Amino acid sequence: MHSIRKSKNMAKPIYLYNTLTRRKEEFRPLHAPAVGMYVCGPTVYGDPHLGHVRPAVTFDLLFRLLRYEGYKVRYVRNITDVGHLENDADSGEDKIAKKARLEQLEPMEVAQYYTNRYHEFMDRLGVLRPSIEPHASGHVIEQIAMTQAILDAGYAYVSNGSVYFDVQKYVSDGYNYGILSGRNLDEMQSGGRSDDFEGEKRFAADFALWKRAAPEHIMRWPSPWSEGFPGWHLECSAMSAKYLGERFDIHGGGMDLMFPHHECEIAQSTAALGHASANYWVHNNMVTIGGQKMGKSLGNFITLEQLFTGDHRLLSQAYAPMVIRFFILQAHYRSTLDFSDGALLAAEKGLERLSKAWGLLASGRIRAAAVSTIPSPAGLLAECEEALCDDLNSPVAIARLFDWVRHVNALHDGTLSATEEDLLTLRGAFDTVLGTLLGLSLSPAGDTADRDNGRLGGVIDMILEVRQQAKLAKDWATSDLIRDRLAALGIRVKDRKDGADWELD
Amino acid sequence: MHSIRKSKNMAKPIYLYNTLTRRKEEFRPLHAPAVGMYVCGPTVYGDPHLGHVRPAVTFDLLFRLLRYEGYKVRYVRNITDVGHLENDADSGEDKIAKKARLEQLEPMEVAQYYTNRYHEFMDRLGVLRPSIEPHASGHVIEQIAMTQAILDAGYAYVSNGSVYFDVQKYVSDGYNYGILSGRNLDEMQSGGRSDDFEGEKRFAADFALWKRAAPEHIMRWPSPWSEGFPGWHLECSAMSAKYLGERFDIHGGGMDLMFPHHECEIAQSTAALGHASANYWVHNNMVTIGGQKMGKSLGNFITLEQLFTGDHRLLSQAYAPMVIRFFILQAHYRSTLDFSDGALLAAEKGLERLSKAWGLLASGRIRAAAVSTIPSPAGLLAECEEALCDDLNSPVAIARLFDWVRHVNALHDGTLSATEEDLLTLRGAFDTVLGTLLGLSLSPAGDTADRDNGRLGGVIDMILEVRQQAKLAKDWATSDLIRDRLAALGIRVKDRKDGADWELD
Repeated sequence: MHSIRKSKNMAKPIYLYNTLTRRKEEFRPLHAPAVGMYVCGPTVYGDPHLGHVRPAVTFDLLFRLLRYEGYKVRYVRNITDVGHLENDADSGEDKIAKKARLEQLEPMEVAQYYTNRYHEFMDRLGVLRPSIEPHASGHVIEQIAMTQAILDAGYAYVSNGSVYFDVQKYVSDGYNYGILSGRNLDEMQSGGRSDDFEGEKRFAADFALWKRAAPEHIMRWPSPWSEGFPGWHLECSAMSAKYLGERFDIHGGGMDLMFPHHECEIAQSTAALGHASANYWVHNNMVTIGGQKMGKSLGNFITLEQLFTGDHRLLSQAYAPMVIRFFILQAHYRSTLDFSDGALLAAEKGLERLSKAWGLLASGRIRAAAVSTIPSPAGLLAECEEALCDDLNSPVAIARLFDWVRHVNALHDGTLSATEEDLLTLRGAFDTVLGTLLGLSLSPAGDTADRDNGRLGGVIDMILEVRQQAKLAKDWATSDLIRDRLAALGIRVKDRKDGADWELD
Repeated sequence: MHSIRKSKNMAKPIYLYNTLTRRKEEFRPLHAPAVGMYVCGPTVYGDPHLGHVRPAVTFDLLFRLLRYEGYKVRYVRNITDVGHLENDADSGEDKIAKKARLEQLEPMEVAQYYTNRYHEFMDRLGVLRPSIEPHASGHVIEQIAMTQAILDAGYAYVSNGSVYFDVQKYVSDGYNYGILSGRNLDEMQSGGRSDDFEGEKRFAADFALWKRAAPEHIMRWPSPWSEGFPGWHLECSAMSAKYLGERFDIHGGGMDLMFPHHECEIAQSTAALGHASANYWVHNNMVTIGGQKMGKSLGNFITLEQLFTGDHRLLSQAYAPMVIRFFILQAHYRSTLDFSDGALLAAEKGLERLSKAWGLLASGRIRAAAVSTIPSPAGLLAECEEALCDDLNSPVAIARLFDWVRHVNALHDGTLSATEEDLLTLRGAFDTVLGTLLGLSLSPAGDTADRDNGRLGGVIDMILEVRQQAKLAKDWATSDLIRDRLAALGIRVKDRKDGADWELD
């Protein structure tokens, strides 16, 4: 509900790579200035990990850019909380029935815990909350209705209390199952996750719309076919239609979801509605770790908690959330991104350089001059905006900012000068690109706040004045003592011609 | 999933005032150490305000106490997101149908916004997240099932697509409608909020279990009786049964919910299950403002945002979330609590005194002595625990802490002394009572951290040494200048015999 937009009327054209057409296309929303965007969210039965970060940050960047360009975005990101937890098989059905509800495992308690953790970590990563976060478990009625619509249209069949999508019928009617992923039917062995074969399916590529629950399955709802639960692909089709309409603009997610999940979504929507729902399918590429796919069995699985604390054998230190965010934005979202300790260390250094320049501009410590000897900063914002509008080219925008870090440092050293107006323009460009669009915040926030506005900076300035007087009186012992005691507190003094500056370690 | 418990096995007996029996009773859970607690949560169609804080803080205190006493609590607090928003009546039904879904008002977007705000503010108030936060809109199937069960049992009737609870039938079968609130049937004119009469009800006190939706009503679901939405009282009966079982321990909420909401809940559960569900009904008393009921029409309605920023005509300043929490805890939850600027100012001063003493203990700035001249601190924790176990008597616990603030200050002044062991015991009691049980955090956290551990304290100590040397050299001008410049930074210097101490404004 808060608006972060540029102050002009015309939106710049935005180009997005559409997986559906396999080319970069100009983004034209169906009902401008309204934009509907649906992104596949987390399954909340485990701690948030690296695999959750890239889609969250990628579509946060797109959300921020669309809002900045003046669109009114309804951003829907689901919570997959229909879990496949089972009651302890050893207890036997009778024993379970006799146990009080309160003593039984409650999947929603697990889901709530991990949903809270996900939110907490995404907040720290500067990921804005979506407009709506619908829960799969809260939309079973809508999923039953869509299953019924697909049955009514003839593209599904009931088998032993479960309902399956009929891929052969869909294909024989001329629809392209494989339109998104480019796979052909022969390659497709099975349609979906947790899609037990059990001899119920007519065809290997068929996938479940509704599953009859086994006795030990905890989460279950009544339906016309059985007491059971919706198939995994159905929630996104049902919830996107409910909140964004039968046709909407953007559907996003990680590349690993392209098949079967998104392919099944398209088939479901087409079968139920007679047409596909999303116009632009946007996929971020995968993350690897040290060149390898991330996996629990490979021992290279890193949770966000581990990244933020450094408590993992592959990490030499803790990394701040903003370093992780910056690292992700340094790569284009359609490239693979390899996490390694070395690459994170480099990102940390890079972000420090940017933050320091940004901090200098924000602190007002660079004095304005009568004339500017820096290049005109007018183009900086436009160039960064253009890069982001070109299929979210964040690495190019960041490179433009780095070009300017050099100039900012020269302004601080006094080797270059800028007018008040140029300083304002420059500061505005850094604020908009780093803050509003890339979603980075000055880090560590506390130190910067102290340094720029707070007591710490004021007290350090006082002690440096004392030191300056000692130096003028050639009392080198006192001068050195002050420098050393500040160093022991993690405050590095940098002597300059006309006094001294300082920075925090 | 994190455990904050005391390290002994035996839980102290806890006594709670049970509205149902109108007396204080020893709390005996059905399935110890498991405890099931259900508390009525917010309706998320408006900004969080004072009325939300008291129940949240009251039941947070109970949640913390139960966990501390070793119980494994499943705490369920619902989100009422079934809103009664309507499409613009001027548009007419046809026009609404022609509008794209994306251009229409979407209640869930409003609900999501206010849910996020509620969480944000409750986090700042130190209110722990419940174990499960079920949404009413996500449990329509369960509410339809419960309505059907009540119909099947003969305690409801269908009227024009809506379903009403049959109060007369319930009473004539010997059930006591009024068991909780003590009202008699003659007083009860109508059963519930947004319960339009429309000539559908047989009896004025009947209340809706399911309502047929008017054409302009946006949120609606299919049901056996009509496309509509559940009655307001039903969600709590359905969701508490789902997550806590047909019988559970504690049901909490504000006293204003006693009738009709909780009375209706008891009737619903009894009709559907054959017995009431909750054993202990716990109600917090109301907040008033300047002695008046809070109301939008009275102009004394204060949102949390306004309290935290001071932006309200009744407030002279902003109040920190911890001041609000402390203010609430200073009163017993069953007393009315009158918010006024003066009372909040007084609470702020009181919390400052407590925080300062707590900070002194935490900072290690009080040196241990060979012998203790303070009274034995061993009883402090036990006395506070006893007070809280006595129907959450937080004002008594706080009074005990204040008794000890005097001793802590004397330890700091050096007029009293304590052994290392006594200091540890004292610090532990402050940590447990203020932090773990009352949920207060040292405030402002940043300043305290800086002061105790950080750079700020170190640099201030350096500048105070310079000042001390100036004083020894009788350079009063420098000494005064340093004092004044520190004061300008919000750092107050307090001269003492052997040097100087300081504190932050």
